[in-house]
Amino acid sequence: MKIANRVKRIEGVLAPVVTPFRKDYAPDAERFVRHCRWLLKNGCAGLAVFGTNSEANSLSVSEKRSLLQKLIEGGVPAASLMPGTGHCALSDSIEMTKAAVDLGCAGVLMLPPFYYKGVSDEGLYRNFAEVIERVGDERLQLYLYHIPPVSQVGISLELIERLLAKYPGIVAGVKDSSGDWKNTKAMLDAFAKRGFDIFAGSEVFLLDNMRNGGKGCITATGNVNPAAIDQVYKNWRSAEADQLQAGITATRAIVQKQPMIPALKATIAHFGNDPQWKTCRPPLVELTSAQEKELITDLKATRFAMPGLAA
Amino acid sequence: MKIANRVKRIEGVLAPVVTPFRKDYAPDAERFVRHCRWLLKNGCAGLAVFGTNSEANSLSVSEKRSLLQKLIEGGVPAASLMPGTGHCALSDSIEMTKAAVDLGCAGVLMLPPFYYKGVSDEGLYRNFAEVIERVGDERLQLYLYHIPPVSQVGISLELIERLLAKYPGIVAGVKDSSGDWKNTKAMLDAFAKRGFDIFAGSEVFLLDNMRNGGKGCITATGNVNPAAIDQVYKNWRSAEADQLQAGITATRAIVQKQPMIPALKATIAHFGNDPQWKTCRPPLVELTSAQEKELITDLKATRFAMPGLAA
Repeated sequence: MKIANRVKRIEGVLAPVVTPFRKDYAPDAERFVRHCRWLLKNGCAGLAVFGTNSEANSLSVSEKRSLLQKLIEGGVPAASLMPGTGHCALSDSIEMTKAAVDLGCAGVLMLPPFYYKGVSDEGLYRNFAEVIERVGDERLQLYLYHIPPVSQVGISLELIERLLAKYPGIVAGVKDSSGDWKNTKAMLDAFAKRGFDIFAGSEVFLLDNMRNGGKGCITATGNVNPAAIDQVYKNWRSAEADQLQAGITATRAIVQKQPMIPALKATIAHFGNDPQWKTCRPPLVELTSAQEKELITDLKATRFAMPGLAA
Repeated sequence: MKIANRVKRIEGVLAPVVTPFRKDYAPDAERFVRHCRWLLKNGCAGLAVFGTNSEANSLSVSEKRSLLQKLIEGGVPAASLMPGTGHCALSDSIEMTKAAVDLGCAGVLMLPPFYYKGVSDEGLYRNFAEVIERVGDERLQLYLYHIPPVSQVGISLELIERLLAKYPGIVAGVKDSSGDWKNTKAMLDAFAKRGFDIFAGSEVFLLDNMRNGGKGCITATGNVNPAAIDQVYKNWRSAEADQLQAGITATRAIVQKQPMIPALKATIAHFGNDPQWKTCRPPLVELTSAQEKELITDLKATRFAMPGLAA
């Protein structure tokens, strides 16, 4: 292992940044850099690029490495980055994680291998341990990504316990996108005081997470509503906290009425006056015009805004 | 599109060839070539390398391209190969499919993108159409891979209809691993007479498939029992067909009592006297010694044999 010189851990609101595509479905680095910079200026403490909402699993490792390089060249600080680096293939996870650490990223957010179903904790342990050993760099800060509604393969408390015991410091936390507060609470109770940072997978649970020792949230709608979500994070101890939470929960509900990823893209396209943002890579498709109209109408009926987004 | 000069379509028994690994989890090209050659000598008409049972989704595109190259250098005819080329990432599916066509493979067996769940047929259509257009080579013979129990994303009859109408000849068939005979029968009824070749995903359905216009099977246990399965294929019109079918169904049941992939590997390790074959790449794990003992004992209680396997 290389000697540790770890970047400060990110706390607060992170967006799993949506990935813009050109008409030919090629990733659009320029729009990507621009959106990342906007997010960091508008409430995001960090950027969980290459998450589920980034269509990361529709991108190859080389496409993601290229985008990551361009973000850093474009002035996005590596210390703000927590790229997704977990793939079905062990070799892909190793390559992507190594690339992220070499670029100085603050952390990586790692899916379990998700093709084979019903796999054992022993097999998942071997997967994560093998990545850590092969990357062989104590700068690595690994956040486990628990999202069983999509990946169908989850991260159990027993698996966290075993990885944390073997790799303290390197195993840095978790994003819980189970949508099940009981599970997040169980993670908080077991691990929050042991140097293991728990992020809610939706801002709906942000206030509860903060009140129980969590460190923030990594949330889809962080792409469009980061300032308001950050207000809950910053003011969770205040008298207004519940009211602030109700506001971001309401906005979430509007976006969540539509398919999430194309809805985020349609929102950015509309408020940024940039229709190309709507493109999704197959197998995802853009919103229908009826869905889009409902989304924008609903958002406009609130005080929703994305100041400074339009070029 | 390049002018078509298509390889003859494969019919009969195909094995989704298990992938051997070294102790460090690197793919073992030498053992892979050896097993492929054994399969072709012992009843397999073709090799569906990089299938589910190949742990293909635990391999990177570059690892698979390298193995494919080495198979051909090792004397395995490209005309016998139907590699799996479907990935979550559109760009990976394009790269792998192009590589297979360039090497002269008889076909490719393509999973739908399987990370995002609940995707529309429109999105899946765009995925397959985009691969076909980008590969841009009429030598391509694309077999759709329907395996909802694992991929969670399936191939509907409507999707087949639409792809077949747009790309006749290129869209060549399907492997149905739904485990649901009603679904296979519906595919046979709708498409078997339209130049669309239907393979059962298990030898359990081989005789039924042949009697209804199918072209064979692509089956896990083809890795260890190809000769007997091929006897059903070759003799499906004979008076002994049902008896032969009962024999291969019984062998399948023995193997299927254990986790399939490590069971296949343990069988090859035992009958080939080559313990290194047992290694699985994470997240899969080898059989326990109790499972292994039960498997081998059960197999030996029948006339099961793998002649010529041991070096």
